[in-house]
Amino acid sequence: MHMEQIKFDDAGLIPAIAFDVESRKVMMLAYMNAEALQVTIETGIVTYWSRSRQKLWVKGESSGHTQQLQWLRLDCDGDALLVGVRQNVAACHVGYFSCFYREYRDGEWLVTDERVFDPEAKYGG
Amino acid sequence: MHMEQIKFDDAGLIPAIAFDVESRKVMMLAYMNAEALQVTIETGIVTYWSRSRQKLWVKGESSGHTQQLQWLRLDCDGDALLVGVRQNVAACHVGYFSCFYREYRDGEWLVTDERVFDPEAKYGG
Repeated sequence: MHMEQIKFDDAGLIPAIAFDVESRKVMMLAYMNAEALQVTIETGIVTYWSRSRQKLWVKGESSGHTQQLQWLRLDCDGDALLVGVRQNVAACHVGYFSCFYREYRDGEWLVTDERVFDPEAKYGG
Repeated sequence: MHMEQIKFDDAGLIPAIAFDVESRKVMMLAYMNAEALQVTIETGIVTYWSRSRQKLWVKGESSGHTQQLQWLRLDCDGDALLVGVRQNVAACHVGYFSCFYREYRDGEWLVTDERVFDPEAKYGG
């Protein structure tokens, strides 16, 4: 692929916005390195670079909440990716469909969305 | 506002995804510092921090291609903002409605969108 058009940052990363093509909602913002991008394209399963764990992160690998790649877009500056996905179940580990489940209202961040799964139940009895 | 829930990075910035509420398209990814966020909320005109110019950047101030704030969302980790906007004319300085006008197809980044204005004409005769 034409990697030379992609401007990875000093850490070798590029921010990637996951966008669910069916709901037309923004799911999350995460980061890819060149390998994560290559794996995403080759497998069709969206794969990021985990900055906290410093390793490849196949989104939903343990939870089953995977993202199927639909299309991939690059911005004018070449320093951001927009990833069209089909989101399985939910993007957010705390149970919301989108990670952006809080909205700013009158000076506070209010939870406006409903949970689509119970994050406790996954690890519960 | 509840700034303590927002995790700015080491440079004091947070990535902000601009999302056009009418077309439900992602427009661009840019960055805000605390001041840009405050100005955005106070004025209702989306304002970023320009990393290249190291100053506040009222999007569309010179071109007129402003973004009217509709709502503001914060992600689960508190380290990314989703900004609902009404995009005036176009987000991209090279003439496309969205900065993400290139799509990956068969190893290449193809321009798939139509220009909505001619960037040359702005500065032309």
